[in-house]
Amino acid sequence: MIFEPAKPEDRQGILAVTAKIDVFTDEEKDTVRELWDDGGYDFLVARRDGRVVGFTCYGERALTEGTYDLFWIAVDPSERRLGTGKSLMRATEAEVQKRGGRILIAETSGMESYASTRAFYESVGYQKEAVIRDFYKPGDDLVVYTLHF
Amino acid sequence: MIFEPAKPEDRQGILAVTAKIDVFTDEEKDTVRELWDDGGYDFLVARRDGRVVGFTCYGERALTEGTYDLFWIAVDPSERRLGTGKSLMRATEAEVQKRGGRILIAETSGMESYASTRAFYESVGYQKEAVIRDFYKPGDDLVVYTLHF
Repeated sequence: MIFEPAKPEDRQGILAVTAKIDVFTDEEKDTVRELWDDGGYDFLVARRDGRVVGFTCYGERALTEGTYDLFWIAVDPSERRLGTGKSLMRATEAEVQKRGGRILIAETSGMESYASTRAFYESVGYQKEAVIRDFYKPGDDLVVYTLHF
Repeated sequence: MIFEPAKPEDRQGILAVTAKIDVFTDEEKDTVRELWDDGGYDFLVARRDGRVVGFTCYGERALTEGTYDLFWIAVDPSERRLGTGKSLMRATEAEVQKRGGRILIAETSGMESYASTRAFYESVGYQKEAVIRDFYKPGDDLVVYTLHF
């Protein structure tokens, strides 16, 4: 498995993995494509036998010195439980630190359907640092996980 | 005093008020201009005798249903202690509610130099709902104030 910054030809591979993620809404899937096409965000891919099997999308938050947002992490369902997600996080953290990043922030939902996402962030060392009630919609809190390097 | 959505000819008045705010960095002042010129954000102005004496800039957060960010609030120093800031907040909240907003979020710094800003949000009914340590830079926390309508 190779972890490396995405190349221009990875667009289809990234969108194909995105399409397989049940927990993403159509609007969220569109957002991944918009961030790629916008060009102002960093993508990192996990590649097995040349094929994209996972990716992260991240970028520095405006008006901060070294605070990065993890916008998306997605792993092909066939690759789950193989540690690909954890390795993607570690590779992304290394890239962020290379750029002078001090903090990586992962925002997610407090809904039951995101319980495994929250458990994943906790299992790879992130701490729940903040909650905003009803942020996404009534009954759907924002939960902010952070890693301070 | 009139409170109303900004008109195209308010650009200079908004930038003139921005220039007078000591607590804004040059980068932050540039950001106000960029948000205006970008066109994708809502501005509301306070006008006295035709002159802009304060403004807010706000917008809906992507991927939420009805959560709005207050990006900026600025009041001409000569207008302070006259309740202009509070009236600007109330007028902005009314506009946000008109658009179906449920929550207005005001993010600010935990630094000593922002103590009066934090006191202002608290005095107009906002609650400190979250803190992210060292968010802006080491020693400079993010403090998130919210009003749930």
